[in-house]
This record gives sequence, structure tokens and C-alpha cells, in this order.
Amino acid sequence: MNIIDIIENKKHGCILSESEIKFFIEGVTKGTIEDYQISALLMAIYFQGMNLEETILMTKYMAESGKMLDLSEISNNITDKHSTGGVGDKITLIFLPLMAAAGLYTAKLSGRGLGHTGGTIDKLESIPNFKTNLSIEEFKNKVKFHKTAIAAQTPDLAPADGKLYALRDVTSTVDIIPLIASSVVSKKIASGANHIILDVKYGNGAFIKTPEEAQKLSEIMVQTGKSLNRNICAVISAMNQPLGRAIGNSLEVIEVIEFLKGNIEWDLKELTYTLCKKALEKSGRKETDKYLDELIESGKALEKFKELIEAQNGDSSVINDYNKFPSASIKYEIKAVKSGFISNIEALKIAKACKNLGAGREKKTDKIDYSAGVYLTKRYSEAVKKGETISVIYTNKKEAIKEAENLILSAYKISDEKPSKSNIIYKIID
Amino acid sequence: MNIIDIIENKKHGCILSESEIKFFIEGVTKGTIEDYQISALLMAIYFQGMNLEETILMTKYMAESGKMLDLSEISNNITDKHSTGGVGDKITLIFLPLMAAAGLYTAKLSGRGLGHTGGTIDKLESIPNFKTNLSIEEFKNKVKFHKTAIAAQTPDLAPADGKLYALRDVTSTVDIIPLIASSVVSKKIASGANHIILDVKYGNGAFIKTPEEAQKLSEIMVQTGKSLNRNICAVISAMNQPLGRAIGNSLEVIEVIEFLKGNIEWDLKELTYTLCKKALEKSGRKETDKYLDELIESGKALEKFKELIEAQNGDSSVINDYNKFPSASIKYEIKAVKSGFISNIEALKIAKACKNLGAGREKKTDKIDYSAGVYLTKRYSEAVKKGETISVIYTNKKEAIKEAENLILSAYKISDEKPSKSNIIYKIID
Repeated sequence: MNIIDIIENKKHGCILSESEIKFFIEGVTKGTIEDYQISALLMAIYFQGMNLEETILMTKYMAESGKMLDLSEISNNITDKHSTGGVGDKITLIFLPLMAAAGLYTAKLSGRGLGHTGGTIDKLESIPNFKTNLSIEEFKNKVKFHKTAIAAQTPDLAPADGKLYALRDVTSTVDIIPLIASSVVSKKIASGANHIILDVKYGNGAFIKTPEEAQKLSEIMVQTGKSLNRNICAVISAMNQPLGRAIGNSLEVIEVIEFLKGNIEWDLKELTYTLCKKALEKSGRKETDKYLDELIESGKALEKFKELIEAQNGDSSVINDYNKFPSASIKYEIKAVKSGFISNIEALKIAKACKNLGAGREKKTDKIDYSAGVYLTKRYSEAVKKGETISVIYTNKKEAIKEAENLILSAYKISDEKPSKSNIIYKIID
Repeated sequence: MNIIDIIENKKHGCILSESEIKFFIEGVTKGTIEDYQISALLMAIYFQGMNLEETILMTKYMAESGKMLDLSEISNNITDKHSTGGVGDKITLIFLPLMAAAGLYTAKLSGRGLGHTGGTIDKLESIPNFKTNLSIEEFKNKVKFHKTAIAAQTPDLAPADGKLYALRDVTSTVDIIPLIASSVVSKKIASGANHIILDVKYGNGAFIKTPEEAQKLSEIMVQTGKSLNRNICAVISAMNQPLGRAIGNSLEVIEVIEFLKGNIEWDLKELTYTLCKKALEKSGRKETDKYLDELIESGKALEKFKELIEAQNGDSSVINDYNKFPSASIKYEIKAVKSGFISNIEALKIAKACKNLGAGREKKTDKIDYSAGVYLTKRYSEAVKKGETISVIYTNKKEAIKEAENLILSAYKISDEKPSKSNIIYKIID
């Protein structure tokens, strides 16, 4: 078998055999296939696609390309959650303590991806001393004793995915649905949880633009996960406007704490509760919103968040003293240019503004300013008067303010009529 | 400008702009674009194609990527000839002395390609001491004084093509017509001749399989060459059966000498004469087959071949003493399994047999056995009796004989009816 024939086969629209896919993934992992051959095959896959069978096999061999976590000594009922990424997406940080309070085991490994704003790991690292680089033993022990733990994904899990993703990023081959599916599901398979809840987003602030595409991707991921013996489902939601009011690392953690204290934004609740109820259902429990409300009202969920922070060496006093977070030297208020109702806040523009303010990274080596970001004082459907503050910029980069302000102003749409409240959940694929 | 955007544009079917093509070719030449990005773009071009304008620009910048030979001090009437490659293709070695005898300047640079049997440079190197590595000054001087010279193409002519070709070869992106056109024409443009005669082959023994594809390629090459101010045409011919009776390096040179002595195979004559008449026409001369016949009958063409050999340090005594060529230790005769008429000899199988016998190379570093090859004692439409010799294997590899014999036997088709003689020229694109 040789890689040139495999490229040739896919180029001509053939379905790759199990042995061809195994040969390819092993070659990627061991470095015996050249990068220029990998990228040629990826581009051929862009044009010719992969069917479900190929996607499942690709996912299986990618998952098996490195270490496979075994969590069965803890429980056979462990949940993992994955989001395809959005603006202001702090859902994981609400989901984990809520589920721990509900008595569910969750084990979350999270990539330190590139993006306009930080990933979940970056958000947690805005808490002083919070440790995300856990060894596998530490990770498992924390799950065992605290019901939950979250750690930065190590490169020895699904290394073939790491290699492929790095290449896709620089060869314009990211937007290939079966490869996105393999990438997501292979990492989740290798991470060891048997229940997987996927949070799949579409819209201008997501890398998938339409609900139809999100559905297609979700169906492939769910079918792939099921074929590989995982109890998996996908919740599809809109990502046209930021989630919640806070975008930026420490700002988002503060919003999470506020949520757990009972100051709840409607969209964060809608999405988190939907994911939580699916997670509970996977473990055989049918629970209501009221049940989840009570976990918050009783302080149990906040207590679990405190326990999670302390278990990972973080300074839990941030919960009652937000000054303990890194703080921005500049707070700049943006004013409404006219009166009316907020009828849209374009997520992508807010994300770009945040990146310029220091909240994200372009290259892996870029440093994130945890304090930087944007707080949306006025949200969708809220009334605003001309000259009133609609959002606040937090940054240490004075020179970035002007452009960020322009981006934010152009992101906001103010209408005369109050828009109707809309749901963000589009569909659940189970 | 960055290469990822260029890949993305082509992936989505956009026409690349002149500045994008220039950026790409310069990046390939300077090594500032990564191989994995080049191969991703090549695969995107396989699927999305390039229009004529893109092909012309690609060709222009590839030609300009290195040294450009200037032959204008010799003449403004210099002819180059290029074949897309076939089995038993020794046409260049007949064409050059014939044209020199006719008083035409020809200047031929030839790549030392991979293939089942050697290239023109390899064939000439089977003549003891023949020197093909000429400096540009030596090459020009020989053209000036002897009307013709042939040298191995140096890597500093159209280096972008060398780089691209090497990558295409290992990423299954060879069969892309606009890239084939750019590759051929850019080298010819950089080689300095102002008249270009292309010998384009189709069939099982060529890399293009159908006459339609050959025509498409020819039209693009001719239009591209004309746009870049070259007097260019293409002769399209069949390559389903080997050209002539000899396949293998020294065997083919002997067949060339025999041709120039007047022992002429019909297909070699048909193709060579067609190419010669087009070359003469490009220089404003209309000549007949009879004119060319006389150049052979008078011994003038053979005399020019002798002069060419001597001008390049070769031992011209080979012309009258074939024992001076490297000779094979084994001559093995293959017998007809039945009586009838030869109705086909599949070129590709004969070529594969020759490679196994030592006549070709797979990797650039492979050594060629100049003496190895196959001689077709019986050709198309000739009568044969069961048990009579149909071909002779020449080799130094005893272990390769059995497989070669099987290939050759399966290449020959023997019918009861005598097949009609057919022309090999399909069309001329001018």
C-alpha cells in the first residue's frame, strides 16, 4: 500500500477501505507520510467527501492513534461535553458544577485552541493559581473525589488529530464536515467518558454558518459516536449574537459566578439547562428546569464551583471578591448613537473587537490578557436611549480602543420596534 | 497576500489573478511557500481547473523563474522540439540530423525524466563518451557551428517547474491539463528557441489516454505558446503500439542509424517527416517528403548525425560498428504461440517489460542498463508462423526474463485476418 495510490483513489471519488484509512492515520501519527501528501489527500476529501463508514473508521483510528483514557474504575456513567465554539461561550463552566451538584460524574479535557477570545482553559486560568495542566492520574483522582475536573488536553490523546488539524489550518481544508466530525469525536473517544453531550453552534460567530450544516455535522458526529459505542447526542443552537453579556476571560468567569448566584441571563440558562437535562437523561434521569433552579437557589452549584476551583489549586476567594481577578487598566464606555431597541449584536464583530483588545490569540505563542474583553450593558431586545452606555470595553491596550469601538458600534443594531424574544435552541440530534 | 487565501479562492472555483499567480510561482521558486500548501493548491486546481488566461500567466512566471536562454545572437530562426513521451520514441534523434541537413537551426534541451525506458539524453549516453552535460556557452557554440546540439536540461531553467513537477509526482496531481501545458511550455520558453514543434501522444503507452484529451492539451499549449510570442504547433499521434521495432537505449540509437542509412520503419517516417515539414514551414519553407527522402538517400542526414556525435565528444565509429555499443549478455528469443497476423502490440506492456529488463528507472538515482531492451522482430500487420521469433529480449538480468516474456506475449495480439495499415497522425494543431 502506498499513499500516492490512496490520494489517487480519493481524487477519483473512491470510498477508502479500512486498511487505507488505517495506513493513512498510522502514517500521519508516525510521520512516515509527508505533509504535502497529507494535505493533497485532505483537499481531495474536500471535493470528494467521505461517507459515514469512512468517517467512523477515520475517527476510530484517530482516537486509537495515542493514549486512550480509561475512566471505568471511577464509573461507567461519566459525561463529557464539547462545544464547537462560540462568542461568550462560558457554558462549560456552568455545566460542570451544576452536574456535580446533581451527582453526575463529568470529566472534561479541553483544547487550548486559537480564537478571537480564549478557550475554557484560558478562562479558568484567569482565576489566580488555577492549575489546568494535570497529569492523567491527578485528573482521574479529582473526578473520583469531586465528581468533576477539567484539564488542558495533552498532545498524547489522539495525536493524529493534532497533526491533521495543524495542517488543515494552513491549507484551507478546515471546512470539511466529515473531518470536523472525526476531529471532535476522536478526541472525545480518547478522553474516556461514555456519555458525550455535543454543543453544536451555527451563525456568524461560529465556524459553521447555517443550521442545515450544523445539523449535517451533528448527525454525522452522533452516528459516528454511537458506532464507536458512546452514548452521544448533539444540541444545535444559534451563535449569531454573543452568549450572555460578558466576552473575555475573567469577565466571563465573573458572569458564571453571577449565574451560580442566581443572576441568570436567559440564553445561558436555555442552553445550559438543555445540555444538563440531556446529560442527566443519558444517565437515566429525567429532571426538570425546576430541579436545576433549585441546585442554584440552594447554593449547591456555586459550592461545587468553589470545590472545583480549590481542587485545582485556584484561589476561590474570587467568588466573593472580583478584584482578585486580573483587572484592566482601562474601562471605556460605548454610548448608543440613537434611541430604540437592540435588535441585533453581531457576534463575530464583538469577537474581533475582543481579540484586538487582547482577549484572544492568533498564534499558539501569543499571550492572552485575561482582563480584556467587552461587557454588553445592553442586550438583544432591551430598550436604550441615545447617549446611554450600551457596552464597556476592558483593556490594557489604549491604541486598540478606537477600532474596537467602531467594531462594537457596527455590531449593534438599534431598531424602533422591540424585537420578539427568540429561542436559541434549533434542534437536538439524539 | 497570503497562500492560504489563494488556496481558498481556487478551492471555491475563483479565477486566480495575475498577482496571485506571480506570488505563488515566486513563493515556489524561493521556497517561501510550504510544500504542503503547494500540494493543497495543486489538488484544488485538479478539481477547479485553470482557464487559458491563468495557464498563460502560470507559464510565463514559471519560464521567468530562472535563467532564460538567449539564442538571438545565433539566429531568430531556431527550432525546438518536444515530445510528451512514448514507448520506442527515438524521433528526436532522427529529427535533429535531418533538420541540420536541411539547413535549419535546432537547439534541444531534454529532461532526464523517469520512465519505463530512458529519455533522449539516456539514449545518447549509450554512445560511448557522448557528453550531454554542456554549459550554456558550449551548447550555444555547438548550435552555432553545427546547426544543432542536444543537452541535458539544467535545473536553473524554469526551476519552479522542477519543484512543482517533483511534488506533483508524489501527490497524484500529474494529470492536470493546464499544469501539464505550463510545465512543457515554460521549459520551452526558457530554452530560448522561437519555433516550437510539439509531439503530443495519446494511447496506452502515453500518459494521455485519449485523442480528445491530447487535442485539448495541444490547443492549450499552442495558445499559451502563441500568447508568449512563440511560433508553436502540435502534432498529435497515436501511442498504442511502440514506435519502430527497437525499445531500449542503445537498441533505439541503432534503429536511428539504420533509419538514416535508409532502412526505414513506416511509423518513424510518418511521424518524423510530419514534424520536420512543420519545422521547415515555421521557417518559411514548404518541403515535400521527397526532399526529406533525398537528405537520407544522399547520406547528408547520417553525416550530420556523425557530426553531432563528434561535436559532443561521442565515439562516432558506432555508426559502422554496433559492437561499440554496450551489449547485453543475454539475447532471448520469444516465439509466436500461434500463426496469423500481428494485430496489436500493447505499448505499455512492452515498456514495463523493458523497465524490468533494466532499460528504465523508477527513482532518479536508479542506474540504467543501456544495452537492455526489446526488439520487435514482428510488427503490426506482419505475418507470423507458430514457433517463429516475434521479438528478442536484450538484458543482463537473467531473473527478469520470465516475467518480461509473459508481458511481451500478452502484449502481442495475433489474428487470423491481416489488419489494415493505419496512420498514426491524428491531427495537427497550429
